[in-house]
Amino acid sequence: MARIEKDFLGEREIPAEAYYGVQTLRGKENFHITGVPMSREPYFVQAFGHVKKAAAMANRDLGVLDGRIADAIIAACDRVIAGDMNNQFITDFIQGGAGTSTNMNANEVIANLALEYLGQPKGDYQTVNPNDHVNFGQSTNDVYPTALHLALIMRLRSYADALRRLQDAFFAKAKEFDRVLKMGRTHLQDAVPMSLGAEFHGWGTTIGEEVQRISEVMQLLHEINLGATAIGTSVTAAPGYPALATRHLAELTGIDFILAADLVEATSDTGVYVQLSGVLKRTSSKLTKICNDIRLLASGPRCGFNEIDLPQLQPGSSIMPGKVNPVIPEVVNQAGFLVIGLDTTVTLAASAGQLQLNVMEPVISFALFLSIRTMENAVNSLRTHCVMGIKANADRTREMVMNSLGIVTLLKPVLGYKQCAELAREGYQQGKSLHQLVVQEKKLITQEKWDEIFSFENLIDPEFIR
Amino acid sequence: MARIEKDFLGEREIPAEAYYGVQTLRGKENFHITGVPMSREPYFVQAFGHVKKAAAMANRDLGVLDGRIADAIIAACDRVIAGDMNNQFITDFIQGGAGTSTNMNANEVIANLALEYLGQPKGDYQTVNPNDHVNFGQSTNDVYPTALHLALIMRLRSYADALRRLQDAFFAKAKEFDRVLKMGRTHLQDAVPMSLGAEFHGWGTTIGEEVQRISEVMQLLHEINLGATAIGTSVTAAPGYPALATRHLAELTGIDFILAADLVEATSDTGVYVQLSGVLKRTSSKLTKICNDIRLLASGPRCGFNEIDLPQLQPGSSIMPGKVNPVIPEVVNQAGFLVIGLDTTVTLAASAGQLQLNVMEPVISFALFLSIRTMENAVNSLRTHCVMGIKANADRTREMVMNSLGIVTLLKPVLGYKQCAELAREGYQQGKSLHQLVVQEKKLITQEKWDEIFSFENLIDPEFIR
Amino acid sequence: MARIEKDFLGEREIPAEAYYGVQTLRGKENFHITGVPMSREPYFVQAFGHVKKAAAMANRDLGVLDGRIADAIIAACDRVIAGDMNNQFITDFIQGGAGTSTNMNANEVIANLALEYLGQPKGDYQTVNPNDHVNFGQSTNDVYPTALHLALIMRLRSYADALRRLQDAFFAKAKEFDRVLKMGRTHLQDAVPMSLGAEFHGWGTTIGEEVQRISEVMQLLHEINLGATAIGTSVTAAPGYPALATRHLAELTGIDFILAADLVEATSDTGVYVQLSGVLKRTSSKLTKICNDIRLLASGPRCGFNEIDLPQLQPGSSIMPGKVNPVIPEVVNQAGFLVIGLDTTVTLAASAGQLQLNVMEPVISFALFLSIRTMENAVNSLRTHCVMGIKANADRTREMVMNSLGIVTLLKPVLGYKQCAELAREGYQQGKSLHQLVVQEKKLITQEKWDEIFSFENLIDPEFIR
Amino acid sequence: MARIEKDFLGEREIPAEAYYGVQTLRGKENFHITGVPMSREPYFVQAFGHVKKAAAMANRDLGVLDGRIADAIIAACDRVIAGDMNNQFITDFIQGGAGTSTNMNANEVIANLALEYLGQPKGDYQTVNPNDHVNFGQSTNDVYPTALHLALIMRLRSYADALRRLQDAFFAKAKEFDRVLKMGRTHLQDAVPMSLGAEFHGWGTTIGEEVQRISEVMQLLHEINLGATAIGTSVTAAPGYPALATRHLAELTGIDFILAADLVEATSDTGVYVQLSGVLKRTSSKLTKICNDIRLLASGPRCGFNEIDLPQLQPGSSIMPGKVNPVIPEVVNQAGFLVIGLDTTVTLAASAGQLQLNVMEPVISFALFLSIRTMENAVNSLRTHCVMGIKANADRTREMVMNSLGIVTLLKPVLGYKQCAELAREGYQQGKSLHQLVVQEKKLITQEKWDEIFSFENLIDPEFIR
Repeated sequence: MARIEKDFLGEREIPAEAYYGVQTLRGKENFHITGVPMSREPYFVQAFGHVKKAAAMANRDLGVLDGRIADAIIAACDRVIAGDMNNQFITDFIQGGAGTSTNMNANEVIANLALEYLGQPKGDYQTVNPNDHVNFGQSTNDVYPTALHLALIMRLRSYADALRRLQDAFFAKAKEFDRVLKMGRTHLQDAVPMSLGAEFHGWGTTIGEEVQRISEVMQLLHEINLGATAIGTSVTAAPGYPALATRHLAELTGIDFILAADLVEATSDTGVYVQLSGVLKRTSSKLTKICNDIRLLASGPRCGFNEIDLPQLQPGSSIMPGKVNPVIPEVVNQAGFLVIGLDTTVTLAASAGQLQLNVMEPVISFALFLSIRTMENAVNSLRTHCVMGIKANADRTREMVMNSLGIVTLLKPVLGYKQCAELAREGYQQGKSLHQLVVQEKKLITQEKWDEIFSFENLIDPEFIR
Repeated sequence: MARIEKDFLGEREIPAEAYYGVQTLRGKENFHITGVPMSREPYFVQAFGHVKKAAAMANRDLGVLDGRIADAIIAACDRVIAGDMNNQFITDFIQGGAGTSTNMNANEVIANLALEYLGQPKGDYQTVNPNDHVNFGQSTNDVYPTALHLALIMRLRSYADALRRLQDAFFAKAKEFDRVLKMGRTHLQDAVPMSLGAEFHGWGTTIGEEVQRISEVMQLLHEINLGATAIGTSVTAAPGYPALATRHLAELTGIDFILAADLVEATSDTGVYVQLSGVLKRTSSKLTKICNDIRLLASGPRCGFNEIDLPQLQPGSSIMPGKVNPVIPEVVNQAGFLVIGLDTTVTLAASAGQLQLNVMEPVISFALFLSIRTMENAVNSLRTHCVMGIKANADRTREMVMNSLGIVTLLKPVLGYKQCAELAREGYQQGKSLHQLVVQEKKLITQEKWDEIFSFENLIDPEFIR
Repeated sequence: MARIEKDFLGEREIPAEAYYGVQTLRGKENFHITGVPMSREPYFVQAFGHVKKAAAMANRDLGVLDGRIADAIIAACDRVIAGDMNNQFITDFIQGGAGTSTNMNANEVIANLALEYLGQPKGDYQTVNPNDHVNFGQSTNDVYPTALHLALIMRLRSYADALRRLQDAFFAKAKEFDRVLKMGRTHLQDAVPMSLGAEFHGWGTTIGEEVQRISEVMQLLHEINLGATAIGTSVTAAPGYPALATRHLAELTGIDFILAADLVEATSDTGVYVQLSGVLKRTSSKLTKICNDIRLLASGPRCGFNEIDLPQLQPGSSIMPGKVNPVIPEVVNQAGFLVIGLDTTVTLAASAGQLQLNVMEPVISFALFLSIRTMENAVNSLRTHCVMGIKANADRTREMVMNSLGIVTLLKPVLGYKQCAELAREGYQQGKSLHQLVVQEKKLITQEKWDEIFSFENLIDPEFIR
Repeated sequence: MARIEKDFLGEREIPAEAYYGVQTLRGKENFHITGVPMSREPYFVQAFGHVKKAAAMANRDLGVLDGRIADAIIAACDRVIAGDMNNQFITDFIQGGAGTSTNMNANEVIANLALEYLGQPKGDYQTVNPNDHVNFGQSTNDVYPTALHLALIMRLRSYADALRRLQDAFFAKAKEFDRVLKMGRTHLQDAVPMSLGAEFHGWGTTIGEEVQRISEVMQLLHEINLGATAIGTSVTAAPGYPALATRHLAELTGIDFILAADLVEATSDTGVYVQLSGVLKRTSSKLTKICNDIRLLASGPRCGFNEIDLPQLQPGSSIMPGKVNPVIPEVVNQAGFLVIGLDTTVTLAASAGQLQLNVMEPVISFALFLSIRTMENAVNSLRTHCVMGIKANADRTREMVMNSLGIVTLLKPVLGYKQCAELAREGYQQGKSLHQLVVQEKKLITQEKWDEIFSFENLIDPEFIR
């Protein structure tokens, strides 16, 4: 069963149960590009519900929208917000027209829900019209970016939580590995000793900074252009609408939205997306570094660093115990590469704004949601499937420190620079450890003295014991 | 109903109807990253069918795989190739382990199909084992990239066809607009006249070059490392297997695959993907330029260039006739931005190879297939929904040329440089056309002479008539 | 004349007048990569002077550096800060060793200046040693990034000033063009009227936001790791040194530097550079958009938009008056492309940190300084050579608005929707303006009424006069 | 002393000794962007000499340029080609006007050299005019890209030679390390044995492929648009000029230049630069991987892989022998990051072509020359300062293999799968080597049998001895 809807291109059959209409159908057919419908990001659908509701409330308050129709629209928006209509948002994420098809998808779904609320059949657009009523005093050019801001804020909250939990996991491990002595390395070369806890703590600290950066960029997303309509002059909007709609949206969502002071600027500007994408990329570059480090520290078991063991998630080799492929850090690395690449996409799209509009916002939204969701998944995997289960090979890491030659510097106050240098060279050439040379072979100091000088505390923060 | 399968992590229920097994399930659970299953690219599934079939044939020929089992595996592969099993390939495109989960997904599906062929129940891995039989003498490290090469070749053929048809569409329009006089522009400034046909011809030519570049990079994809196994030393493969498996694969697919001469290099190298991605990006940058041009030439209708009209696909403004938003070129622009961004992803992943393997291949495959499919869709839209329906506003474009001042150069042989320069300045200051000044007001030449000098041919390729 | 200096690789002749020494020479020879010496960025040299001075002061205060030597080093640093020694900083911007050659270049120049201050010959490193005295308690790993932070802050101040002046120039023009009526465009299609002033104001607003973003990222640069030494454990530094050296540096420069709380994190982290580069890129993407707009608005003179005239800086065509190639916006576009590309470089380098250090900081500094200086030059050019001299073609822009069909909406309250739609279609098909149809031909309203309805104010912010 | 030259903006003093003129001066002043003059790339200057010479020869042959003037211009070009005038090419690499300032710089220098040849004073442009004679029948839009193609070919030859020598160095080391047994690694985890020679051979092979890719892209650079003039219609050029000038250029340079078939396309197309940049990026991504590997294999000396030793170029730590910072691979990594970033720049610039021209070519030339020169320097450093001096720690690498557990697979034919698996687990849990368990403790096989099974050949290519 189907109903008939028509537009200037002619008539089309719409499935009877569908809440979307003919323009949504056109949009879906015109833009078969990624195959990813906007419903892939439920927050985006929800955000349209909020924005359309705020608009209806403001228009009702201002007396430009009939109260009965406004109430029906508001009730319809509540169902969209509740998530009941996600499968009706079928247009491709990437589309021409600056998101017009997405906006019309929302307008049509809401109009038909409102009609249902009023007891009218779907498609009775004389009663509730997607354009004239649901979209009253609006334009894709203000509604789409406003909904995008809101959806990004919701998505980012979820992502920031994931990062915060990862930070906590690193800090918990930092405490656990507080007294695990290991060699610090620069240039991949043996440098000076440190604790494994300090290394994990650094990872926690650096992820914590990302939570701050995300919080700052979320603040920038609070500025919206709702009521700017087509080009920022608020043409077709009722006087007072921009401020009122913004206030309603803030109240509905509990987010301190503010209306941009320069609406012409705000309507074509996409700088906030570049800023956000830059932060996402920064987090990715940090996670890339951390995961590279984890993979390096877990290398081996016999022919690598072998400082830590990762939890095993899938068979490595059936006959080679201890061979654990670091599959989770590897997948986080890949998620990071995706995000870094998509940052270029966002930048290109943002640079392509022209005159009073940037029509490339749909690909920006596609790239940003794909980036954030992918990273959120990756970060959660990293925490639960990897970090929380990491074990330190404390004997091995301590042995490497004691087997190294750089720690000879601790003997300088006792033996003098020259003898130390000679010991180091001897150890290097003969493949011996300092302990072998100093305590066992040459008996230059006693084991007690050795233990005092090469205590954990003194190795990490030398006091130069004489 | 479900069956029980187990691995070293314990037992798991597998849906009775599922052809995949426990390792596929683990992979799906471990790598919940993009939500895009490998079946999104059916060619990739098909390619695994071909590769597994070629391997089984080679192992049977070499006597290292039991003939009855080999035949069952081959029959199973035929069903995968036929596309019957696409919905069984459920692992996420992006995964750790360098594609092990994808390879195991193929192994498990094929094993269970082979069991079915042999009249055995699913999960009876004593009879046909995903690892010991289906994956015999193979490693993810040679099977995954070989399947990827094959799948990319199939996908690229389809994409190249789309580009070829677009080239033809441009050439057809070039012929149609052969005699449409228009102003050529450099720096967005009026330069010298040309035909609109020449502009469209240039677009066709430049797309044709892309078909050539794709064809060249497809040639590079013919080199595979099948039989290299884990690190390129062919460990676990039977003697003669690499060459034989390669020959079988070539025969099965009709593609001239050749075995890499340096299998150690070939196993960790991902240069071919960077080359391919670079070509995809190049095509995108050309399409970006072309779509920018189309949008520019279609700007207006009253306050822009208005040289061409695009077909109208969705309502612009109900009351503003002639306002046609260039939604298709806009979406092609966005597809191009995506591809250019994903090229960075591919480069990063390719740079991240370490020692004997590049474990980042899964994100490379994700990025490449997303890029090619998106562009293929975009290119098809551009041709059918835009280019084929473009109309020239020949009167308008001719009028602009005749209204321009640069064409005064054509009068130099008749009036001399100095008078021409004065005429141009006069026209510029008074906002008059040359014809107004020269023929109507000053009567410096007759209308007949004017028509001779300013003929289409002479405007485009001046002979400097005296 | 030359002096001889030696290191573990042997003896080398150093020009007698050179203040640098043998390690600088090795660095220059080992790293012949870009040919760009660090002196290309004088702020970077100056910053090393400040950091080395603060270190010497702290070490003197803490009693670990002899007072006479400390004073000589401090005096030497003052000469470096004054810019007297720029030509002695000869090592290539891009180098291995994480900036060791640059740090040693500073150490050697300062040591020889200190020797000169003490009346000793250059090269007398027994008296003042580049490593043991100038670099006392320091490591390249804390000194280099601290100097880089300081130099970037100084360079960014200069850049932010340039942006602020550009903002002012846009605002001045916005005022000048306050009453210039023009057509607003979305999708490059005629949309609704606006003032040219509002367009320029938007550009000013958007640049002003960049000044804020830069100011925020400068705040992040205040956090330094001075005293972290090799890996963040402050090994070799005197107790209390990190905090004291930081305080001295803050006092010397008047910048509120603060010591990072987690020095291990701070020593390997390069996130601040990614953040900064992201902001630089954002500004570039905005300038790209603005310059594209300027070039578009200046297109023509006869076959383009021709809304504004740019100042002419070099001959376009000798015989074509009014043809002004938009060379300055073109060069700003190119500067922007460079910055956007270098952002990828910074991201890659930042992602490549390993364990306790990121050895890729030199290319980060190269990329950032090249980006900022290039953009600063470009922004200054844009302001002085372009924006300040832009002239509006107010008659032309007004004529385009009045010649457009979309303004028919203003007649709806008087003539009704249906007649308006017909008028628009008629105008479109016959190539006529609304005024022609409504006032001249059909005499539907009087010229007076027309003037009232189509006044500047009503066109920009319609009150729907009946 | 100075001479006076004038243009439409007024008079300017030119230094008496300068061969450039007033337009060069304007260009230098207008475009103070990077501070890098075009003379930084001498091949670019030389290429302009060749192109201008070929143009003069063609115009002389066609009778449109006076023979005496043509001969003077040709003689002048020879001096430019010889490199005598490099310091006269002062305009910034990045400029607006699509390279007009660079072209005029060439025209002015050549005109003044021609005047000198004719015994006339500099600046006597009545006799030899930079525009009317030197630039006769030419446009920046064909001359600039043609010179760029030629200069790139010359630069790429030099770069390809550097890569070829690097390949040879890797192959020489491959031979030297032919019998050095080492552990192959995937996922940074111990995999199966291989020879160090095979690893170096792989690096040589992969670099050799780059030489091929460069050679292919050089072929694409042979197609030029000389004679296309402003927009590809050859307006202002004499009939026959394009083909003749191309032939002269091919003869002068010995390079098989061919004239593009579609000159309109060729004049705005910049695809060849994207292709080239993509190849440069590919090579960089491979060198990144190789240098990462080298740094990893050289990690240690005691707490890392320590498989190879790099030559020491500058002091690491005075007291830690064997600590060699891998400064050359580090700098090559950084050069690679620069190239990968600049590829984005090239892509952006190439995408920004509009209508009949891409005005962004100057930044493309800047980026490409910076990339190639930087990589050429980096590659030469890598070969001479690093690869040629690498030493293998053969005892260490062999010991790691023998100490690993994965080699237990070689015992399967003798001991069976089950016992092997137990041995491996036992070794893993007790931290023992297989030899310890099998020969020393459990005496499961004799030392002779052990030696037979674990011979170099059998380890690398197992025959499964029973």
